[in-house]
Amino acid sequence: MNRIIECVPNFSEGRDRLKIEKIADCFREKTGVKLLDYSGDVDHNRSVITVVGELEAMKNAVIEAIGKAVELIDLTKQSGEHPRMGAVDVVPFIPIKNVTMKEAIALSKEVAMEVYERFKLPVFLYEASATAKHRENLADVRRGEFEGLTEKMKLPEWRADYGPIFPHPTAGAVAIGARKPLIAYNINLSTNNIEIAKAIAKKVRHSSGGLRYCKAIGIELKERDVAQVSLNLIDYSKTSLYSVHEMVRIEAKRYGISIIGSEVIGLIPMAALAESAAYYLGIENFSINQVLEAKLLE
Amino acid sequence: MNRIIECVPNFSEGRDRLKIEKIADCFREKTGVKLLDYSGDVDHNRSVITVVGELEAMKNAVIEAIGKAVELIDLTKQSGEHPRMGAVDVVPFIPIKNVTMKEAIALSKEVAMEVYERFKLPVFLYEASATAKHRENLADVRRGEFEGLTEKMKLPEWRADYGPIFPHPTAGAVAIGARKPLIAYNINLSTNNIEIAKAIAKKVRHSSGGLRYCKAIGIELKERDVAQVSLNLIDYSKTSLYSVHEMVRIEAKRYGISIIGSEVIGLIPMAALAESAAYYLGIENFSINQVLEAKLLE
Repeated sequence: MNRIIECVPNFSEGRDRLKIEKIADCFREKTGVKLLDYSGDVDHNRSVITVVGELEAMKNAVIEAIGKAVELIDLTKQSGEHPRMGAVDVVPFIPIKNVTMKEAIALSKEVAMEVYERFKLPVFLYEASATAKHRENLADVRRGEFEGLTEKMKLPEWRADYGPIFPHPTAGAVAIGARKPLIAYNINLSTNNIEIAKAIAKKVRHSSGGLRYCKAIGIELKERDVAQVSLNLIDYSKTSLYSVHEMVRIEAKRYGISIIGSEVIGLIPMAALAESAAYYLGIENFSINQVLEAKLLE
Repeated sequence: MNRIIECVPNFSEGRDRLKIEKIADCFREKTGVKLLDYSGDVDHNRSVITVVGELEAMKNAVIEAIGKAVELIDLTKQSGEHPRMGAVDVVPFIPIKNVTMKEAIALSKEVAMEVYERFKLPVFLYEASATAKHRENLADVRRGEFEGLTEKMKLPEWRADYGPIFPHPTAGAVAIGARKPLIAYNINLSTNNIEIAKAIAKKVRHSSGGLRYCKAIGIELKERDVAQVSLNLIDYSKTSLYSVHEMVRIEAKRYGISIIGSEVIGLIPMAALAESAAYYLGIENFSINQVLEAKLLE
């Protein structure tokens, strides 16, 4: 593949293995599309699929997967730790190789239009594809979640970009857009107190005074009986992975607790890990071009 | 390139830019060979070239570069912080993709034979190519350095594998062999006391009680007026980069000093950096398959 776009659709089903497989199947054995990774989280009740491919092939596979999720997932019966407004909650397109952001935006709009026409699913364009400043941020678009969507979409500023002024009865609405690579990074705390996780998230995230390219929420992992700061790094080249980790550690200190572990959801770009390794190992003047695999990929 | 072997020859010239370029030129614009990286170090008075390529093309380019170094570098007039026994000090071949260790060993012997025949340079086979247990370790082969080579080579157990029982008058001898990927990692200390660097190196390296796959020496960086622990990790999958860093940090503590920085010489495999990042960030169950570029390289 000479031109590569990545897509990381999030589906509001993290428990029913069969349904997750059926959605993932839409990306299997397709020419020009490669399923890289998928994982479902029971507490979040959400699954994340990572796929790369050529533009046209990607478009068709993503539309098929969205249709499958609308068919299989009923939000009136779904609950989980992770906020969501749709059966397919969010569909980001990320330029990887020889694809411009402009082309990624164009692709997101083509998918948006067809998704509405074929499945009657209202679409909000977000991030780089957003049609207004207040619709860029996914958290703002999603605020009120599935349960509040009917009221929210009556407001003129929250009409869908494609579709009617009411949500799909079982699948809600979907956010589709183009954006830079994102890192989903969750940090587990040595407490099950969700209020502490929420307080730390508030300190660390951009919207309430924290790091510029960091989003964060506090949630509870019932299965493990721990509280978690669930983070998104929306531009890791500017807000580093290690900065976020150290900020959470410092905040946790005031509650006398510590970090007991963390996890990366989906895939992570090599540069983000390399930069964090270089920070902790004190490597001076480190360049990504010192990584053997970066050279081999050239 | 479907089959890839890496070669990382070390030359005993880190100051004369022109000579370094002439040696590097042997790997430029050759079909089947790609020069990935090269750098000279003034204090070490040594340069390291990293090149990948197909087996036959690699063989020819490496022989040419060795010839060029024998022509340009005169060890009777060379001195530097790094121990050395030859103008071309060491030439390791490392299997990267679809190449076995056995093939790398065979290649190292072909190069060794031709290097002796064409340049009258004695060759010691080392590491996986060594002809006896006591000749595996480069530090043992090199002990006594260029200045002690004439006497050393008179001993039956230190006869060269290819060549006469005396060294080349200006180029000494060369160690050639096959080995696993190695990481060259130097740690700078907040002192210029070389005795402390030597004491730390002794504690950390395998040969005197330290980590199994770690070699280390203490040297002085005159230009920066700091002492340095210069390390080689000969199997980073077993002795981790972060383990070595933490061991040096812990040892430095007893002298009331700290690590002020570090450097990676040449290239480093992605897996080594990813593992260290995962350690410091506390990432649970991290797999190299979560790195986007690892997936793209498949």
